[in-house]
Amino acid sequence: MSTTANQPIGVLGIGLIGGSFALALRSSGQKIIASDSSSEACRQALELGAADAASGDLAALAECSAVLIATPPGAFARALAAAESAGALETAQVIFDAGSSKRQITAQAAEILGERYRRFVACHPIAGTELSGVTAARADLFANRQVIVCPDAQTDPAALARAEQLWSAAGGQIERMDSCEHDRLFASVSHLPHLLAYALVESLFNSPDAEQMRQFAASGFRDFTRIASSNPDMWRDICLQNAGNIIAALDHYCARLEDLRQAIENQDAEKLHQLFGRVRELRNSWLAEQKFDE
Amino acid sequence: MSTTANQPIGVLGIGLIGGSFALALRSSGQKIIASDSSSEACRQALELGAADAASGDLAALAECSAVLIATPPGAFARALAAAESAGALETAQVIFDAGSSKRQITAQAAEILGERYRRFVACHPIAGTELSGVTAARADLFANRQVIVCPDAQTDPAALARAEQLWSAAGGQIERMDSCEHDRLFASVSHLPHLLAYALVESLFNSPDAEQMRQFAASGFRDFTRIASSNPDMWRDICLQNAGNIIAALDHYCARLEDLRQAIENQDAEKLHQLFGRVRELRNSWLAEQKFDE
Repeated sequence: MSTTANQPIGVLGIGLIGGSFALALRSSGQKIIASDSSSEACRQALELGAADAASGDLAALAECSAVLIATPPGAFARALAAAESAGALETAQVIFDAGSSKRQITAQAAEILGERYRRFVACHPIAGTELSGVTAARADLFANRQVIVCPDAQTDPAALARAEQLWSAAGGQIERMDSCEHDRLFASVSHLPHLLAYALVESLFNSPDAEQMRQFAASGFRDFTRIASSNPDMWRDICLQNAGNIIAALDHYCARLEDLRQAIENQDAEKLHQLFGRVRELRNSWLAEQKFDE
Repeated sequence: MSTTANQPIGVLGIGLIGGSFALALRSSGQKIIASDSSSEACRQALELGAADAASGDLAALAECSAVLIATPPGAFARALAAAESAGALETAQVIFDAGSSKRQITAQAAEILGERYRRFVACHPIAGTELSGVTAARADLFANRQVIVCPDAQTDPAALARAEQLWSAAGGQIERMDSCEHDRLFASVSHLPHLLAYALVESLFNSPDAEQMRQFAASGFRDFTRIASSNPDMWRDICLQNAGNIIAALDHYCARLEDLRQAIENQDAEKLHQLFGRVRELRNSWLAEQKFDE
């Protein structure tokens, strides 16, 4: 660790992500100061050992050498601006975030931080569960998970190194990526599947046959829709912030669905079999490369 | 058990479903005779203890008091006709199946069995895994799982009782349902999610960006697409047999997806938040009623 190891690290927004980051770092002796507008979240964070101090007071972050902004994406700009106004970010060597969309966050940080923007590092740990809040936080949430880090030409190399060091200390594996590419890629691999799952639950359970649907939906449906239990605030914000990429991914997906619909309508046994066989191979070969314990 | 307990039960098609049924019944001492056109499947079934005898010889089923046809749905008619021609079904008190679509199977059974159709019971155990083949069979596959049984006006009550008794002995919980209603309902709760998962894997992994998609797809994607590793033969057959209901379910779903797309395009924060919040509640309340150990 660097010479700043004895200085506290700040976490603004102590939910699933902020709390898990805090638990991971506290387990190796790092002091954590949390700030959250919810007094209940602060109380729980202290109770769960996710912070040494936790309050609604942003000025308490002023002594921190690094500050993680871990609010839902839509609350990021407001939280960052409030922390900046409170003088809480003046001495931080790095200010970083953990949100699922990166381009708009980056633009907001540039606007709010001005000169200090060079100390900002946009980050996205590829980890989470369908649960939310600090009570769902786990010290191992980021263990062996990829953390996407999106520096740009203005990023201070020392700030970048410190952000990467902290995520590594929390268990993550660093991958650098351009923020535009990040948003395009995650629209497909993450945002799109969430929307498909949300739409499926809505399609089945908000219908005249909902009672029967509920009775006969089985484990396949459960797995398919697990991500539809995710935090609604966060997914609203992601949809708003990454709208263009998400719509493009959705349109590309719907074209595949239309192909499938045509093959079914045409009773095209050969095409269906080819498609299902190819997909099974694609998924199984992907799965074989992963570190999941499926 | 009835007086026929000492007579063997036949399983035509010894894969995941037939094998699991056989393992469950053999564990309570029931003699099982398997028939499969694949000599490899027969060898494996014997090795795994899923049958007392297994061969390609359909006539070996003639001494059975009950015969389960557990082929993929598209092979059902051929297998049933072959067994009927071989004189293998003359003394069976009940002939039943385990397929995921019921109306076409029922019509095929009526045509092939003629007078003996009254001894046929269309069944669908709501169980399975994304694996296939007898090597994936498990004695507890049907434990506490619903088994949909679709008798009609012609069904012999004794045959129905016997089919239900056998599924219960394998651990299943019986639910009776009209075959048309079955097909309409399962088009939504089961067939549609499978198609959505297949289309997603195709959309991501059969694209110019496939390599990056594969690198960053995470556990949400894994869970969402688990069912896309299912048996391609079976899913081709289900699509062909239940095409009308599946297309209706797909169209209903795509209308929900279009609503969502509009809300994203319009940056309608309120609508997105409402939808995601409602869906989370719907799914979580559904999950709370289930016996899953999620």
